[in-house]
Amino acid sequence: MRDDELRPRRHFLKQAGLVTAGLGGLVALNDCRRGRSPAEAKGPAIIKSQRQYQWTMVTTWPRNFPGLGTGANRLAERIQSMSGGQLQISVKAAGERVPALQVFDAVRSGTAELGHGAAYYWKGKLPAAQFFSAVPFGLNAQEMAAWMYHGGALKLWTELYADFGVVPLPCGNTGVQMGGWFKKEIHSAADFQGLIMRMPGLGGEVIRQVGAAAPNIPGGEIFQALDSGAIDATEWVGPYNDLAFGLYKAAPYYYYPGWHEPGTVLELLINKSAWLALPAHLQAIIQGAAQADYNEMLAEFNARNGQALDTLVHARKVQLRRFPSDLLQKLAQISREVLGDMANQDTATRKVYDSFLGFQKTALGWNQIGESAYDQARLLDPAVEALLQSRS
Amino acid sequence: MRDDELRPRRHFLKQAGLVTAGLGGLVALNDCRRGRSPAEAKGPAIIKSQRQYQWTMVTTWPRNFPGLGTGANRLAERIQSMSGGQLQISVKAAGERVPALQVFDAVRSGTAELGHGAAYYWKGKLPAAQFFSAVPFGLNAQEMAAWMYHGGALKLWTELYADFGVVPLPCGNTGVQMGGWFKKEIHSAADFQGLIMRMPGLGGEVIRQVGAAAPNIPGGEIFQALDSGAIDATEWVGPYNDLAFGLYKAAPYYYYPGWHEPGTVLELLINKSAWLALPAHLQAIIQGAAQADYNEMLAEFNARNGQALDTLVHARKVQLRRFPSDLLQKLAQISREVLGDMANQDTATRKVYDSFLGFQKTALGWNQIGESAYDQARLLDPAVEALLQSRS
Repeated sequence: MRDDELRPRRHFLKQAGLVTAGLGGLVALNDCRRGRSPAEAKGPAIIKSQRQYQWTMVTTWPRNFPGLGTGANRLAERIQSMSGGQLQISVKAAGERVPALQVFDAVRSGTAELGHGAAYYWKGKLPAAQFFSAVPFGLNAQEMAAWMYHGGALKLWTELYADFGVVPLPCGNTGVQMGGWFKKEIHSAADFQGLIMRMPGLGGEVIRQVGAAAPNIPGGEIFQALDSGAIDATEWVGPYNDLAFGLYKAAPYYYYPGWHEPGTVLELLINKSAWLALPAHLQAIIQGAAQADYNEMLAEFNARNGQALDTLVHARKVQLRRFPSDLLQKLAQISREVLGDMANQDTATRKVYDSFLGFQKTALGWNQIGESAYDQARLLDPAVEALLQSRS
Repeated sequence: MRDDELRPRRHFLKQAGLVTAGLGGLVALNDCRRGRSPAEAKGPAIIKSQRQYQWTMVTTWPRNFPGLGTGANRLAERIQSMSGGQLQISVKAAGERVPALQVFDAVRSGTAELGHGAAYYWKGKLPAAQFFSAVPFGLNAQEMAAWMYHGGALKLWTELYADFGVVPLPCGNTGVQMGGWFKKEIHSAADFQGLIMRMPGLGGEVIRQVGAAAPNIPGGEIFQALDSGAIDATEWVGPYNDLAFGLYKAAPYYYYPGWHEPGTVLELLINKSAWLALPAHLQAIIQGAAQADYNEMLAEFNARNGQALDTLVHARKVQLRRFPSDLLQKLAQISREVLGDMANQDTATRKVYDSFLGFQKTALGWNQIGESAYDQARLLDPAVEALLQSRS
């Protein structure tokens, strides 16, 4: 194996506190002759010729970036572990094989069999792809998974990418993001007039409508731009990743909610020829590993965001602020108009938008009396109020 | 294979619209000599002796029960597909091999290698297990996953079951449940006095404190008990499963939120000896399949609950009601006392409760400005208000 290839690691077995000697790889025929208890092998050994695969995964993230880069590493390890090493994956971070924004084309051409990124990065060639990552005032992380796996979105996404010879799979979610870091407080839409705020994708389209400039600056350059005053404000992800970039050192006000990215889906890209040539069990492993990592990444962000928020507020004395309701209302209305305009541009986007709207209607109705009603109800206990105060 | 064994199905590949001929099973050595493109096999074929496993999974659910029983079937299929048929699983529904409430003991004794159920069913022998399924006013579905995978809960759960020779893994979540079906409206805690309401677990403990009787009746018998008047009220799961039982025919008022089960975790039980004897890649497959199914089941419940809610409200004219805030506050306080009492009973429960409390503190802080703040913000758009009205 090459030096930079990830060796299979029993990450998840260690997580559960269980490690076994394991038999992966070549197994002596003698094994099948040893007596075994009923709880163990019940069938005969089968001799198989098993083709080995060595693939490359290019990503849009800095190497080992918390949550995102580490998520790509972990997904590659999962696939290697589950396949007993039959499918080995070498992970190349942004810039190591191709630049971040070349990941889609690299997978399309077969330069790499796999890509790990977010669909809104390809909006230039596929505007409709933005629905499969994040939509302002759209579906949250759980709802995106529901729309994907039981609402038809994955089928639409697969069709959208098919002409490009690329297969998509959801493989993570950041959970709800934060509304950004500002040097001055935001009281109304007027405060966006002339504001230079780093915000990519549809969120950027929306704030342009209220007079902001919305440059898209690569993650690694955001702090410098904010600190130097080249930009007045920025969003990035949430407490976990924002703390990692030290953005609090360059702007004091930390706004919520993250209206522009309520639950951003991460995508695994697969070169279609490579996918079709795989045996069925390896396809099942890739699909299952990606779906497991949707759960794992979201769990990690939820846990780490909570901890990072505590650090930001209590140790770094960051000032949390909520966007005013009338501003949020205005941004929501503009978002709806921006999405509607997009849908009018081509039939592919129209189809996806209609599916999204239909799903949103049902999802909102359920969310109101389900998750939202519960989240509010549990705050009624005065002891919980005290619990939240005691975090100071 | 026996007739009742599930044959591997490419469920997930079909879901993504992709099916391939596949090479699973025995492969002729000739394959490795055929010329392949760079996108395909890059390495030599390896000859392996692969032991076959034929396991049994017993479940606590009726055969093919929506979401739950079908979830067990799907998990078994995933494992079979990912292992290329090396690990085959025969699923036995409640009563087919052992009764529902014997599932834990069946796995413990090795009668079955796998079990599919919920940890609160074993509260008699493991009171602390209740924390790993559902806690009144506790963590929601996303937070449970975060506590499990990045908050130490899975480690504690594994330790708890270790003495019984059983290994647990989270393998699903129902999402938030509903507060139940009532023949009369609930205005205050006084309306629980003398009420006979089917409610198992910790929820039942809580309503007993406000004077209700809380029998635990098996799912399949609930409708009859409610319709006949043997009970006055019941909870079951959420709109999807409640509609399946036709409970609306026996009681007109459908209350929310589901304070007693905010995000119930489903568990996969594994006989420890069987687990330790598995090769590493099959352990990784089981762990990954279970984690993928946590995501899948939750996605399914979210999608189907939304649709079923629409049916119940608009087609069946069910009357939705929200529990009064002061009642919820009282139930929350009682829940806290019940949990505290449990924790005082033994050190294992104390340890789990302390972990839960620590995690809850951070989770609530993040949820308030994260998911909750976002869910409320998106309702500010008047068009969304109109959207929700238009569902009538």
